[in-house]
Amino acid sequence: MSEVSPAIIRAAHRRIAPFIHRTPVLTSARIDAIVGAQLFFKCENFQKVGAFKARGAFNAVLSLSDAEAAAGVTTHSSGNHAAAVALAACSRGIAAHIVMPSNSSQAKKDAVAAYGGLISFCEPTLEAREAVSAEVIARTGAYFLHPYDNDAVIAGQATAAVELIEDVKGLDAIICPVGGGGLLAGTALATRWLEPDARVIAAEPAGADDAWRSFNARAFLPQTGARTIADGLLTSLGQRNFAIMLEAVDAVITTSEAAIIEAMRVIWQSLKIVVEPSAAVSLAALMEQTSPIAAQRIGVILTGGNVDLDRLPWMV
Amino acid sequence: MSEVSPAIIRAAHRRIAPFIHRTPVLTSARIDAIVGAQLFFKCENFQKVGAFKARGAFNAVLSLSDAEAAAGVTTHSSGNHAAAVALAACSRGIAAHIVMPSNSSQAKKDAVAAYGGLISFCEPTLEAREAVSAEVIARTGAYFLHPYDNDAVIAGQATAAVELIEDVKGLDAIICPVGGGGLLAGTALATRWLEPDARVIAAEPAGADDAWRSFNARAFLPQTGARTIADGLLTSLGQRNFAIMLEAVDAVITTSEAAIIEAMRVIWQSLKIVVEPSAAVSLAALMEQTSPIAAQRIGVILTGGNVDLDRLPWMV
Repeated sequence: MSEVSPAIIRAAHRRIAPFIHRTPVLTSARIDAIVGAQLFFKCENFQKVGAFKARGAFNAVLSLSDAEAAAGVTTHSSGNHAAAVALAACSRGIAAHIVMPSNSSQAKKDAVAAYGGLISFCEPTLEAREAVSAEVIARTGAYFLHPYDNDAVIAGQATAAVELIEDVKGLDAIICPVGGGGLLAGTALATRWLEPDARVIAAEPAGADDAWRSFNARAFLPQTGARTIADGLLTSLGQRNFAIMLEAVDAVITTSEAAIIEAMRVIWQSLKIVVEPSAAVSLAALMEQTSPIAAQRIGVILTGGNVDLDRLPWMV
Repeated sequence: MSEVSPAIIRAAHRRIAPFIHRTPVLTSARIDAIVGAQLFFKCENFQKVGAFKARGAFNAVLSLSDAEAAAGVTTHSSGNHAAAVALAACSRGIAAHIVMPSNSSQAKKDAVAAYGGLISFCEPTLEAREAVSAEVIARTGAYFLHPYDNDAVIAGQATAAVELIEDVKGLDAIICPVGGGGLLAGTALATRWLEPDARVIAAEPAGADDAWRSFNARAFLPQTGARTIADGLLTSLGQRNFAIMLEAVDAVITTSEAAIIEAMRVIWQSLKIVVEPSAAVSLAALMEQTSPIAAQRIGVILTGGNVDLDRLPWMV
């Protein structure tokens, strides 16, 4: 089993608490009627940098020894993890070297720069990301923080489920999306510890279904050719997250692009909150289930709210 | 001064508390930096029916004697007040006869019908509304609830400011939009009672500026030819609300259509919440101020979140 113990998750929560928001849990009678279950939405769209990624990034940056942190940190990301590492490094007073694909959105580049991140651009391929990251590390000596295949990141992401379980008693299940798997792994570990009878369900776009395929094959099958509007979930599952998944996740369910867009719209309309497509994948999967859902009280982690308001998916 | 005393507002709050949400107060460092003050957003977009109107409607419906309520209630409204009265009447188990202009949005008609409201359509003029309302009253004996020129409605709307003042200590000012003036009157009365040193500021679209003109002329000047995207604020100021305004409101500031759209977008982007154009008028007015704002801690009542997601104003 993972080395991320309850004590490590508890320490992570204490460590990051002064820097993150304790996000609210919202409900909607209208959505409950659609799904046929009681849903409790943990609103990480209200989190610092607009996404749960702040939890893992703060825990990873604050866990480094002074020697490890002396030359700053580095990561590669086109999205929320980049902004989260920049903010966490800024809070600790160390440099953040962020490798970003040149085709990252202007909003994402601006966010990283606003938190004092030092951006190095690369071509939009995994090979280019890793090559430029290696060059940055060689040049600066910065400490590399993997966005999800990292125990400190996993322990940080676990704290969202910790708060959800503290705030909502008697959950039958917790569902969250899976991309790299840091949030899923943390959620599964926290749930096994704090609400062991609850099922842990991963939701994944059918167009980026490596977790679903790997889980069912019980073998690590990396993603190729991912295509989904849920841009936070394009990435391949991390190896240590896959191992945790096999131990502690009960099911993976996939969902269509149409359902993701519809679920996103339902959340905006009924909860009156702004969430990004990746955050809507869990509700989409629940809405698309054809068989009744066994769980009656379901915690849903809404992962983030960073979306281009000029390009809403139901308006194209 | 108004007959809506602190005791009446306190009683209203107790009466409606089981039926409404105590809505959260959100903040945004990014918005504070834009405005140069600390803003505390009271999120009535999360209120029942998606707008503060639930407060006044519940108080008015629940304040009726059994004899007054026996034949149900009626009102005319194209918007949030209609849905709120339908919901409140449904909760009390009495009929709600809602007179709606035939050009009301399908979403609004659906909302009223979903709460069991019995809709009578009329031509979209004030004369037609009043004629059809009179016919409904004659036919059904239903009790007429004016959407804003009504003390029970004013006392109900006052409870939003009561909660805001309870949750945020030391406010220097409270700002809310003015249309018919029910929310403004209630806010002013609650603030005079609970936070007497705080200024009360009304925000109004320049395209529907009867409150601004009336306030400055110290004479009641009804609205004609209103034009604004803030569809909740097209209506004329109520007479009793004008009287309260002269006594208890410190300033009225107007704002442009462009600023309303920009402020709405800033709220969606930074607070990650869905608000309707009328709700953005207060922030728009603050953003458009050319002189520094004297108040440093400002409560902002975000009035509602009912918006057509297919027709966002920055995308036309």
